[in-house]
Amino acid sequence: MTILESVTVNLGSRSYPIHIGQGLLAHIKEHLPFNPAGRTLFVLADYNIENTYAEMLAEGLKKAGAAQVHIRSVPPGEASKSWKQLESVLSWILDNKADRQSVLFAVGGGVTGDLGGFAAAIALRGIPFVQVPTTLLAQVDSSVGGKTGINTPQGKNMVGAFHQPAAVLCDLDTLETLPRRELLAGYAEIAKYGLINDPEFFIWLESQGTKVCALEPQVLAKAIETACRKKAEIVAQDETEKGVRALLNLGHTFGHALEAAAGYDGSLLHGEAVAIGMVLAFRLSVRLGLCPEADEARVEKHLAAMGLPVRPSFSDIDKIMAFMTHDKKVTDGKVVFILAHGIGKAVVSKNIDLKDAKQIIAESMKGK
Amino acid sequence: MTILESVTVNLGSRSYPIHIGQGLLAHIKEHLPFNPAGRTLFVLADYNIENTYAEMLAEGLKKAGAAQVHIRSVPPGEASKSWKQLESVLSWILDNKADRQSVLFAVGGGVTGDLGGFAAAIALRGIPFVQVPTTLLAQVDSSVGGKTGINTPQGKNMVGAFHQPAAVLCDLDTLETLPRRELLAGYAEIAKYGLINDPEFFIWLESQGTKVCALEPQVLAKAIETACRKKAEIVAQDETEKGVRALLNLGHTFGHALEAAAGYDGSLLHGEAVAIGMVLAFRLSVRLGLCPEADEARVEKHLAAMGLPVRPSFSDIDKIMAFMTHDKKVTDGKVVFILAHGIGKAVVSKNIDLKDAKQIIAESMKGK
Repeated sequence: MTILESVTVNLGSRSYPIHIGQGLLAHIKEHLPFNPAGRTLFVLADYNIENTYAEMLAEGLKKAGAAQVHIRSVPPGEASKSWKQLESVLSWILDNKADRQSVLFAVGGGVTGDLGGFAAAIALRGIPFVQVPTTLLAQVDSSVGGKTGINTPQGKNMVGAFHQPAAVLCDLDTLETLPRRELLAGYAEIAKYGLINDPEFFIWLESQGTKVCALEPQVLAKAIETACRKKAEIVAQDETEKGVRALLNLGHTFGHALEAAAGYDGSLLHGEAVAIGMVLAFRLSVRLGLCPEADEARVEKHLAAMGLPVRPSFSDIDKIMAFMTHDKKVTDGKVVFILAHGIGKAVVSKNIDLKDAKQIIAESMKGK
Repeated sequence: MTILESVTVNLGSRSYPIHIGQGLLAHIKEHLPFNPAGRTLFVLADYNIENTYAEMLAEGLKKAGAAQVHIRSVPPGEASKSWKQLESVLSWILDNKADRQSVLFAVGGGVTGDLGGFAAAIALRGIPFVQVPTTLLAQVDSSVGGKTGINTPQGKNMVGAFHQPAAVLCDLDTLETLPRRELLAGYAEIAKYGLINDPEFFIWLESQGTKVCALEPQVLAKAIETACRKKAEIVAQDETEKGVRALLNLGHTFGHALEAAAGYDGSLLHGEAVAIGMVLAFRLSVRLGLCPEADEARVEKHLAAMGLPVRPSFSDIDKIMAFMTHDKKVTDGKVVFILAHGIGKAVVSKNIDLKDAKQIIAESMKGK
């Protein structure tokens, strides 16, 4: 029942709070920017947590006077971000007579948030939604930015909407049961904010990272707060991703391609791919004479020390390159890379020779 | 190649122009707010006009240097506003490698515009679209407001997005082949703006309406411009339909219910239902002592004189009432009606006894 940290995402009339704390779901009413009384509410939950946090949330909403609280679970995994699930979620919302006072709560990881947020974006041309991210990755990444969507045969997140939540509740209790690999995958995205434009934060992580991943509440809340605040600052400058927001894709041009080539089968988590991708981006930056070698070495050393992978294990390099040239972020046929002049000095680069990128991947695979 | 009238819809960074004229499609480049050169463009066209206006548009875009112009047709009728068509249109867009420079042109009536606009809203989380409405109804109604969407088993437009076009091109030439009934259905929506808040415009229509429907270019352009401008003024005050925009639904609470009860089989066009609905709204206003009888009589007389239906022909009144209480615009269980204190004096009313509404419909059916 304690809020440890809060961040406000400033987007004018679409501004919203992110609360980070413990026991938030059990006292939901105090943490919402609207009164749930009399409303028809919807809780979309990851199948794995339907019986715990989602039920707890629903009970809290009922106690707060909600007219109806409908719960529905979504199978875990990217396969749920499909047209079929989307249509099914919309049927559930509409069959249960949602109106413009209705609110959808998305309880789970990025998949639940992306699917639930998109369903909320297009139900009755948009109803509010509240994000309750229950993975570290979702707490620091998808809770800011308003990106929602589904996957199609052409790629990830190819269909979707920008739809800002009414509030985000990051309940640290929900991380207790998170597998270690998923926790570390979230940590990679936290480290990203140090690498983009906050060298002090990266230094702090070098000493405090172990405590973050041991779920020490104050340190963990501070790390989440910093990542959310830094992302919010960038998103506020560029809500619909036309400029500076590209920096958030540090590690993602390589990372998305690695993830796609691995086939989204769980062998490489998104955050793991981003960790490898960030190291590759720093290696490419060193190769191009932009970045001191010592900075690249520190990035690789810290991520590896935390237990994250830092080299591609998938070996079909042509497949990786094919995915890289077919990314949504390709503009005018140019692949956009985020490179760095050093730790905390990331820059957008549109004129990279793909041969250089390929060579960096090949060398990294060979353990160079 | 002549623009006769233009309206700017003021929505800050989402502002856009509506051009009304003749021969606009043949000289497309001059009328776009962006340069088509080098872009991958998409033309979604009503099946009935794919071979005429859509081809003409595509030729113009190619001449202007577009990298690719893809054309696809949509079967006419509300049935095309479906999940299935939406998914299929998105596949077409993504298979043809749309990127963030891509633009979708929706050429046709409201169905094509609603489906195409929604597809553009969610492709890559939103690409620009240009509306080329080819029915009078679409020119005066769906060209302003940014409403897009599809139908579901639960009702019309239950899933969709607000997505403002980059430009709207109303080419009067496209109305030459429009069936008379559809032309009049569009006229009903034009008359609505006089009834909402512009008694002078209604007086003008009483004398000029015949010329509008005879497609006299200057008069027709003036009527379209006035309707678009008045709608734009209201939408600019209330982009996402939380307040004053409700006035645009004059005639629609009755009209939607009549249309739904008739089963969208073509026996009652949307504009025809709105014509009947507006007369019923004025009748209800008279019954409640809000509106002089003489004003109601003028409304009914003018619409009937133009050739529009003014009384329900469908006789299952319980079915009509069931649809009325299940409309998307129901808030807190209240059915919202737009009533009037007279011609040009519409008001939002949330406390109507549905028995009164039912009696008005019953009397009108009996020819009272």
